[in-house]
Amino acid sequence: MRNTQSIRGPVVPSRGPLRPLGTDEVRITGGFWAPRQRVNGEATLGHALEWMDELGWTGNFTSVGNGSGSRERKGREFSDSEVYKIVEAMSWEHGRSPDPALDARIDALTSQIAGAQAEDGYLSTSFGRDWQRPRYSDLAWGHELYCVGHLLQAAVARTRTAGAGPLLDVARRAADHVCETFGPDTTGVCGHPEIETALVELARLTGEQRYLDQAASFVERRGYRTLPAHEFGWSYFNDDIPVRKATVLRGHAVRSLYLACGAVDVAVETDDDDLLGAVAEQFDRAWARRTHITGGMGSRHQDEAFGDDFVLPADRAYAETCAGVATVMLAQRLLLATGDNRYAGIADRVLHNLIAGAIGDDGRSFFYANTLHQRTIVQPQAGGERLDVGGLRAPWREVSCCLPNIARLLASLSSYLVTADDTGLRVHQYADCDVETRLADGREVGLEVRTSYPEGGDVAVRVARSGGPWSITLRVPDWATGAVLVVDHERRPVAPGDVVLTRDWTAGQEIRLELPTQPRFTWPDPRIDAVRGCVAVERGPLVLCAESLGDHDLDALRVCVGHSPEQAGDGAVVRARFESLLDSSWPYGEPSARTGTSVPLHLTPYHRWARRGPSTMRVWLPSA
Amino acid sequence: MRNTQSIRGPVVPSRGPLRPLGTDEVRITGGFWAPRQRVNGEATLGHALEWMDELGWTGNFTSVGNGSGSRERKGREFSDSEVYKIVEAMSWEHGRSPDPALDARIDALTSQIAGAQAEDGYLSTSFGRDWQRPRYSDLAWGHELYCVGHLLQAAVARTRTAGAGPLLDVARRAADHVCETFGPDTTGVCGHPEIETALVELARLTGEQRYLDQAASFVERRGYRTLPAHEFGWSYFNDDIPVRKATVLRGHAVRSLYLACGAVDVAVETDDDDLLGAVAEQFDRAWARRTHITGGMGSRHQDEAFGDDFVLPADRAYAETCAGVATVMLAQRLLLATGDNRYAGIADRVLHNLIAGAIGDDGRSFFYANTLHQRTIVQPQAGGERLDVGGLRAPWREVSCCLPNIARLLASLSSYLVTADDTGLRVHQYADCDVETRLADGREVGLEVRTSYPEGGDVAVRVARSGGPWSITLRVPDWATGAVLVVDHERRPVAPGDVVLTRDWTAGQEIRLELPTQPRFTWPDPRIDAVRGCVAVERGPLVLCAESLGDHDLDALRVCVGHSPEQAGDGAVVRARFESLLDSSWPYGEPSARTGTSVPLHLTPYHRWARRGPSTMRVWLPSA
Repeated sequence: MRNTQSIRGPVVPSRGPLRPLGTDEVRITGGFWAPRQRVNGEATLGHALEWMDELGWTGNFTSVGNGSGSRERKGREFSDSEVYKIVEAMSWEHGRSPDPALDARIDALTSQIAGAQAEDGYLSTSFGRDWQRPRYSDLAWGHELYCVGHLLQAAVARTRTAGAGPLLDVARRAADHVCETFGPDTTGVCGHPEIETALVELARLTGEQRYLDQAASFVERRGYRTLPAHEFGWSYFNDDIPVRKATVLRGHAVRSLYLACGAVDVAVETDDDDLLGAVAEQFDRAWARRTHITGGMGSRHQDEAFGDDFVLPADRAYAETCAGVATVMLAQRLLLATGDNRYAGIADRVLHNLIAGAIGDDGRSFFYANTLHQRTIVQPQAGGERLDVGGLRAPWREVSCCLPNIARLLASLSSYLVTADDTGLRVHQYADCDVETRLADGREVGLEVRTSYPEGGDVAVRVARSGGPWSITLRVPDWATGAVLVVDHERRPVAPGDVVLTRDWTAGQEIRLELPTQPRFTWPDPRIDAVRGCVAVERGPLVLCAESLGDHDLDALRVCVGHSPEQAGDGAVVRARFESLLDSSWPYGEPSARTGTSVPLHLTPYHRWARRGPSTMRVWLPSA
Repeated sequence: MRNTQSIRGPVVPSRGPLRPLGTDEVRITGGFWAPRQRVNGEATLGHALEWMDELGWTGNFTSVGNGSGSRERKGREFSDSEVYKIVEAMSWEHGRSPDPALDARIDALTSQIAGAQAEDGYLSTSFGRDWQRPRYSDLAWGHELYCVGHLLQAAVARTRTAGAGPLLDVARRAADHVCETFGPDTTGVCGHPEIETALVELARLTGEQRYLDQAASFVERRGYRTLPAHEFGWSYFNDDIPVRKATVLRGHAVRSLYLACGAVDVAVETDDDDLLGAVAEQFDRAWARRTHITGGMGSRHQDEAFGDDFVLPADRAYAETCAGVATVMLAQRLLLATGDNRYAGIADRVLHNLIAGAIGDDGRSFFYANTLHQRTIVQPQAGGERLDVGGLRAPWREVSCCLPNIARLLASLSSYLVTADDTGLRVHQYADCDVETRLADGREVGLEVRTSYPEGGDVAVRVARSGGPWSITLRVPDWATGAVLVVDHERRPVAPGDVVLTRDWTAGQEIRLELPTQPRFTWPDPRIDAVRGCVAVERGPLVLCAESLGDHDLDALRVCVGHSPEQAGDGAVVRARFESLLDSSWPYGEPSARTGTSVPLHLTPYHRWARRGPSTMRVWLPSA
């Protein structure tokens, strides 16, 4: 199918089995995500801007623009990108919930950004002026192309929600400059992928073939070790193996996932099934062997990287928030490219566990890393905010990529819920939303989805507008064995997978899906050494956890797996023992016989942890 | 007791229950360590010097010395220290096995070093010249005092083995400059401790009180967060809590251990039991909760740091070689200060597992990190040598602190084996050695120790010289339940701990100790999540491991703990199953029933692994 360019969404492939719906076609109305979207718009955007103003990250554009500012640049070399990501988030938010003040703020930031752009289109506040390092003198670490990528994505968001304007002009000039500088005779790639997916989206928006060609070139020239050797190895940059030849995602998790997004985009636009297949295989294998149960990717703090297969420590799980955002981005691209609802299931898991957990209730704090096991109660301390300390959502960090990343995802979230195919609509994610769109044949159709998901499993899909036969496809998640569908006054069991209902729908008709959400034990693959002998408890798409504010010693916890977990509120209760722990001068020796009385233990959704105060937590529970 | 200053050893406290013996009083004659000492002298020293010449690290001294060299300094900011450590190692080696060529090379290097010293005594090739950053402008990362510390230790080694000479003059001038710059009115400390222990040893050598005072001041002023905030936290620098108030070793493992060495040295020289007790408690707790079974300390690659209590992942265990050397250094200091043989047992474990494993057979390659679990077979690759890749001992690295550190330890190793107390001699480490010394009352005594240790448990201690009654104390290791002592034609069981034998010894009398070294299963504390459900196999002081050159899939291994391990060569055989592993698209779900046939599996000493080619390995074996 050929997509129109008017779709208000971040990913609009020109072909593929599914057409995404825009944020104007799907509106989140309540339930799990509506308050999070509201907090994002009302608190997070302003909070991030305040910090970036305060720290001088927005001011960098003015300083280099008018030449009168201090020559001391503020922030890390990639701070421009945070400004762009917030502009992208503001643009989606203004599209979702129009606000003249927000609109004006975007314009003001655009002016600041435009003022920093060189005559020839080059744009960076870090490089290129006579008191700075030369342009592109440090491709490995300089992040110049990475930043431009986020600029392009911001311009795409702005243009798709408010029409062409000055930000698009800035972006086109920057993109043109990139194309001129990194033409076919050159070999350079950016240490941090991002420009690839951004150039494709700008090509989709503008119809400019050169942007697509440049993106394809960046994808193809990667993997030949043109970046300098580094102690983390070339895999860190994903410059170790050509994209087509790799078999698994590896190295720096966010770099790897962003590159994969760009490669899928290129593959879709160039009809390159080999490339698409290669990336899908890499992602599938990473999902099968290198992903935490929360959907978090990345095992290593040191290089923010994937571990080897099955190296997935729960304590100090890395699972960067940005990698979660990138996983949703990649899953969405693969869903659109393949039509395989498995990828929607992946996004479901990441969204309801990692993303929902990463952001503070007030939208003003976030996790950078998302551990699965917090052993010690950590009190906040002034100064020296650490990226790796679990249990504390920080208001801001020297590296604050994650908060703007969540912000742009939440502001555009409705575009991830429902797609159109040749015969109707597919509902991929269950959230309260109203859907209004046109089918491929031009018919106007509408749905209203109401659900207690993810806490509950009741999903009601009401036809709001129809006209003749079309299909509604629902996703029955992998875990939903025993699901029941109610349609046409008939109840019938449905197995995990796609349920396609083609009817001559009339407005008011309702489909009900009953997904079983009683809590269940989940065992890890025996190759995951770090959680051997443990079980997790899940409920629907939610991973649960045991949390202690000091009332329990979670190190002493043993769960009795002979008793099935029981539903309790939005969590579960399991039978557990707290065993007596013996200290010794050396922690290796004879096995100790230990005792403890069985007690009920309440488990809550993982995304809720560390909201009532500093606590200890564990997702993986040693079995008795 | 009051020690004389003529002892040829790196640690010579002026008081304490035990007097160390020098490298001239104890000579290693054969067995486990003699070939390693020989390779160290014949290969490692020259190998390290070649690399440092080639990379320009020694040349830095000449360049800044004659002013005619390139202004481009080579190597990292701490590369001076590697030169000093090799000079220290060469000095011990020349003392152990005199060699005019080695002597001349030390003198030549001393001239190079002296040429780079400023008029006022300041010495660094990284800072202070008009094209460099100002002196002490980056205490956190500049390593200036750290480097001076290693210079002082080199000078101590040279002076104790060859008498006072030009290197001592250089060291004294450098130490004087440190005392003048960091006097009582200042607050500075070096980001990397080392100067503390070095200043104390220089004070012991020279009798200069100001060096001791300066060391005490550096110890006392630490822990008040005077170093800049850092994303790893102040604990990284051990600048988070004053030394007297801390309860456990934490942060960067090597920094923490070096600081503890300096604090013990200060405590001993100033009769400060509070300080000594504080450090002993910190080390004891780290040993009980933050140490791998190999004796390796440090769980985290990211900040080369201790983890929280019981966070001891086997895969990607960090356990830096330098932390192993530092653990031996600290254990020796605590042994000398307290007389508690438990610390000798700690050194035993670290030496026979971590240290012996870190160095290549030819002395020309080394591990930086010492993992306990290698999942994938890694082939060597040119360029970009990574610090964190397990299974490959590298000839050299950009950060090559470990090889010179092992070199100085091995060259002075005999000084760690035997001590003198008020009534006689104590044998702490079992190795083939000849001991000749004088007791406190001036009597000449001698021992000959011959043993199959660590592979075997037979220890023969023959009196070589005597004269009147004195005592011989033997250490029965913690694991040696069922040990037997044979003395005076009598066999008797001895329990773990100290065996003190006071006799009117005559030359030729022999004591035999039979330590049981049949292999045994060892279980981890249940709080160590990373190895839950696993056992290790040990034999005497040796940790064993399963290694595969591709013949076994160690991920599929399950050990039958119902069958005791049996002795086989210097390793063991256990009953094991290799289970069938099922791949799936998501590694969490139902527990899988898996099968496999029981087969015998050979285990070898950990220190032997990765010597026959790239391999996979695991110390912790999942139990069936």
